[in-house]
Amino acid sequence: MVTNEYDAHIAVTPAPGDPAGDRAGDPGRDAGRATFAAELDGGWIVGGGVNGGYLLATLGNAIRATVPDKPDPLSISAYYLSASVPGPASVTTEIKRDGGSVATVAAELWQGDRARITALATYGDLSALPDDVATTAAEPDLPPRDRCVPNTMAPDDVRRIAPMMDRFEMLFHPEHVGWAVGQPSGNGVISAWFRLKDGREPDPISLLTVVDLLPPVTFDLGRPGWAPTLELTAHIRARPAAGWLKVRHATRNVAGGMFEEDCEVWDSAGRLVAQSRQLARLPRE
Amino acid sequence: MVTNEYDAHIAVTPAPGDPAGDRAGDPGRDAGRATFAAELDGGWIVGGGVNGGYLLATLGNAIRATVPDKPDPLSISAYYLSASVPGPASVTTEIKRDGGSVATVAAELWQGDRARITALATYGDLSALPDDVATTAAEPDLPPRDRCVPNTMAPDDVRRIAPMMDRFEMLFHPEHVGWAVGQPSGNGVISAWFRLKDGREPDPISLLTVVDLLPPVTFDLGRPGWAPTLELTAHIRARPAAGWLKVRHATRNVAGGMFEEDCEVWDSAGRLVAQSRQLARLPRE
Repeated sequence: MVTNEYDAHIAVTPAPGDPAGDRAGDPGRDAGRATFAAELDGGWIVGGGVNGGYLLATLGNAIRATVPDKPDPLSISAYYLSASVPGPASVTTEIKRDGGSVATVAAELWQGDRARITALATYGDLSALPDDVATTAAEPDLPPRDRCVPNTMAPDDVRRIAPMMDRFEMLFHPEHVGWAVGQPSGNGVISAWFRLKDGREPDPISLLTVVDLLPPVTFDLGRPGWAPTLELTAHIRARPAAGWLKVRHATRNVAGGMFEEDCEVWDSAGRLVAQSRQLARLPRE
Repeated sequence: MVTNEYDAHIAVTPAPGDPAGDRAGDPGRDAGRATFAAELDGGWIVGGGVNGGYLLATLGNAIRATVPDKPDPLSISAYYLSASVPGPASVTTEIKRDGGSVATVAAELWQGDRARITALATYGDLSALPDDVATTAAEPDLPPRDRCVPNTMAPDDVRRIAPMMDRFEMLFHPEHVGWAVGQPSGNGVISAWFRLKDGREPDPISLLTVVDLLPPVTFDLGRPGWAPTLELTAHIRARPAAGWLKVRHATRNVAGGMFEEDCEVWDSAGRLVAQSRQLARLPRE
């Protein structure tokens, strides 16, 4: 039963008819294909488009429904083809391989005859993984939440173009929001506390949204503006514990009009639960 | 004209007939599809399988032939489905979007009726990118080549199971090869100088091989053995200058029986030309 707005927004339902059906005869290919209907919610608009992390979770939700015995994304790679708009969408899925403990699935998000996202993913069961943890990465050093800067302090004109900001609580490291007052640090790092609206607890699917929600790390480099994603790959490494998440964006290679953005998501138990990297275009100066 | 063994090994030729042809009628999809024949060379065997980076470059070569006006991989994401064997293979490609300065293509490497790799990639023209460089990443600190440890010093039994090592020169940082004598550093870092055999100069396609050639970084953690790749995404950020490359592998999150391996490739001009990350399974203890 859907009890939270986030779950309603990423919901997918099996669709009658399968536009991919006429491919079922491909030689040597798994015939496991499905199509789902989704409704992209305008509440996830940010600037000119619909947030890519929200779209990724919707796509990821359809993949989960395609291989229900492999409920969790281990790795998903999304290539963004065109800008989505609020409203109806369909997600087509095709099982590439389903054997042993993992399944690899191709998925595409469509609106009308326009492909928005094409993706590949490998799903499995995170709860079935061994419990060894030898992480050497350092957890983001965030001040207590009451000393961080809530995104709700953003000016009205920003809130107007980013209704997405009403979908969650995001409390920025005070040293990482200088860009909000015209004083970017130039370090190329942004970190924040995060939780979904109404305290909806994190899970492996919602982490696909979390990895693409912070402002582009280029804000911290004095390059505000939209940074369109070419490609984003997320690795979900563990089921997140309940509670607030710590999210960190960083970049180390701004060059050739593009930059990589690495995201880490740490859960309330101090576990690195998600790592992602995207390749994006620099905002125009 | 093919003049070097590497170019011969990654060569692809248009194949008569197109097993993907019966998909040409998919509603709303680009009909641009092609099939290529390849011959996987046994010279790239390492341990039980054929090196994944060699396979990726062969696949990437077929994508380049599919969108010749977009010659360079900007991003490629490969999901490894089954272990390839030396011998004939086919690569099918399907253009997902070709517009403006980039094209996104899906590609699959097949042997008989077995899919080996399924991949997505966005190609463009690296020479057409703006020349801004604001990289904050640090170049690997490698001693002069004459003070590094050549892979040719590996024991005969290792050379026997890894004929791949005859395809290139790899000179390890002396502090990163303790694992070779039973004394891994435990830092999770391996770096080396690299160039292909016969001095074949690096290019954007060969970088797809370079990002997956060093021993698994788990060797440096005292976990030798095969670390099967689930997923590998490479971003090619610039055309490499001629000369030796510096390659660095590192991991920061060994957990749940898996680890991420980040690879950086720096060219002789001190430019970070490739970044990749793969998710792999830990070798069994």
